[in-house]
Amino acid sequence: MRVGILGNGQLARMLALAGKPLGLDFVFYDNNPQGCANSLGDVVHAKLDNITALQKFITQVDIITFENENIPEKTLAIIPPEKLSPPAVTLLTAQDRLTEKQFLENLGIRVPDYYLIDSQEDLEYALEQNQAPLILKTRRNGYDGRGQLHITTREDIRTAWQKLGETDLIAESVINFQREISMIAVRVQTGEISFYSMTENKHENGILHTSIVKSDDPAQKNAETYTRILMEKLGYIGVLGFEFFDYNNQLLANEFAPRVHNTGHWSIDGATTCQFENHLRAICNLPLGDTSTKTPTIMQNIIGHNPHINDILKIPGVHLHIYQKEPRLRRKIGHINICHHDPDILNNSFIATKKLLTG
Amino acid sequence: MRVGILGNGQLARMLALAGKPLGLDFVFYDNNPQGCANSLGDVVHAKLDNITALQKFITQVDIITFENENIPEKTLAIIPPEKLSPPAVTLLTAQDRLTEKQFLENLGIRVPDYYLIDSQEDLEYALEQNQAPLILKTRRNGYDGRGQLHITTREDIRTAWQKLGETDLIAESVINFQREISMIAVRVQTGEISFYSMTENKHENGILHTSIVKSDDPAQKNAETYTRILMEKLGYIGVLGFEFFDYNNQLLANEFAPRVHNTGHWSIDGATTCQFENHLRAICNLPLGDTSTKTPTIMQNIIGHNPHINDILKIPGVHLHIYQKEPRLRRKIGHINICHHDPDILNNSFIATKKLLTG
Repeated sequence: MRVGILGNGQLARMLALAGKPLGLDFVFYDNNPQGCANSLGDVVHAKLDNITALQKFITQVDIITFENENIPEKTLAIIPPEKLSPPAVTLLTAQDRLTEKQFLENLGIRVPDYYLIDSQEDLEYALEQNQAPLILKTRRNGYDGRGQLHITTREDIRTAWQKLGETDLIAESVINFQREISMIAVRVQTGEISFYSMTENKHENGILHTSIVKSDDPAQKNAETYTRILMEKLGYIGVLGFEFFDYNNQLLANEFAPRVHNTGHWSIDGATTCQFENHLRAICNLPLGDTSTKTPTIMQNIIGHNPHINDILKIPGVHLHIYQKEPRLRRKIGHINICHHDPDILNNSFIATKKLLTG
Repeated sequence: MRVGILGNGQLARMLALAGKPLGLDFVFYDNNPQGCANSLGDVVHAKLDNITALQKFITQVDIITFENENIPEKTLAIIPPEKLSPPAVTLLTAQDRLTEKQFLENLGIRVPDYYLIDSQEDLEYALEQNQAPLILKTRRNGYDGRGQLHITTREDIRTAWQKLGETDLIAESVINFQREISMIAVRVQTGEISFYSMTENKHENGILHTSIVKSDDPAQKNAETYTRILMEKLGYIGVLGFEFFDYNNQLLANEFAPRVHNTGHWSIDGATTCQFENHLRAICNLPLGDTSTKTPTIMQNIIGHNPHINDILKIPGVHLHIYQKEPRLRRKIGHINICHHDPDILNNSFIATKKLLTG
């Protein structure tokens, strides 16, 4: 079976690494000639609006999936629905923060207060109304903290407007959450859903640094319930990542990603079947693999520069995942899964890798 | 770092799948255009005696390893010793059953009685001398039971001679062993050696069908001792597989393979660090990964034809490894690792996969 992936970054790469042992072949569609899955399948170098290239790509593969939710509607319209998984509706819902929030609210899932922003005046009004600072966000194409600015005082508004004023915007109330968590789940055509253990996530400057697997966490059940409601409404097929703020023991939805997700990377070494294999099983209509947690795991992203591999590999419980991307400031270029049954070793290894990653 | 592999079969494929997350790149050297690692790196299509191709290959890579011990001496002579790992001496010792047995005996490791066979008369004499039937084997290039014939009566000799008489031969005494076991170990430049849990192996018609991981087995210690002696004498770097007959609580060496080994395939899902990753770590001079067993595991080879994947993936604890090789009678085209902490589930899943594989 040939799987087509829109995108050629680390998610495409890890999908291919998980899919080869299932006997799957891959074709990556991306405009970037330096894609980091290049060595793992065939590559189509073309833009997403290149209809000729896209139509050829469609005939080359049995099923198409994506590693990025920013796929233009026109591109989606060209792909036959039966060849696209997860379905187009999930992308159209997730790629605009306004649509996404309205969709979640309609399902009875609470989200932080938000304001549609069309002008500086809208922003001034929102800041006045809201009891807390705001985060101004572009409605589309934001990732890793890009397209986001904090607004605490009226003075912040002018600067923010100069930076982001030309795009469609939304302002969200800053939540003084106790923690950020996320839920990775996978759903198949029959409607069966499997959940992974939730993770507690640490961001720095808008970029995910750490996900800690939380088995038997009291928030697991609610996170599963919300994720189930969302997936069923979307008729979802594949893996989905859903981020929440845990605020006074209530979950507020932050955002969901209709794809394999950074907070699920731990599953490669820590779960019985990883998110990448299960995404492929789901979209290829194969039976799901066991999502249970094998070993307590902490995932740490490698950001900006590669650490000294020799030092990393000496640390007990460490599993290294290098993406072979050009190192660049604030760029995710790999991750490390630390797996250990002994909580002291797990913690010491976490401290040791953190030191090497930031040093 | 670029790793060159002589060979492009399933071992090369699984080495590449394990090495990509470490940031390694691969070049496969093989005359077979249908190599099953083709999609995982660059490929040089050439014979092992093509000096021009070989010299170019040597300049393209940082280190060279192999997936098959039948590399001609002339080829080995061209590769600079510092670029070859494990060292050439291991190949020269392992690729001739006579040299191998003499080498092991000199180390004080017992082997079954054997006879050098140059004529039908030698074979008649050996059968007379030996208290048990013999297996006549080609001294070189045998694998998966090929180049082997059982000699029980004088009548078998003539037929055997017609089939194998033109090659260099050895006859080994058939051992009525209680079981066949194997030891997978890895050694690095510093001399550090790590051992995996031994496996109990079941062959049918000379082809490995099943390896069962045996943790805390009384034979583990002796198998480790012999393997250590062998690796140290060879100045070995990388993973080595060593097969023994367990005969009245004594280990008799059957053969060793200076490479990753079929009886170590369970380690992909059952060990903390698999044999493929550890072989690469060793030859690239990186710290070794933990070889401990995570989950009780049984490995079953997929031989001759691919089973119905949907049925296989439904079985609890199953991990599938398809090699994407053309199915052919008696050909290994994949394997299944069954991993489970519950011995009943493990056993039931073993029975279920066996049924699907032979059905």
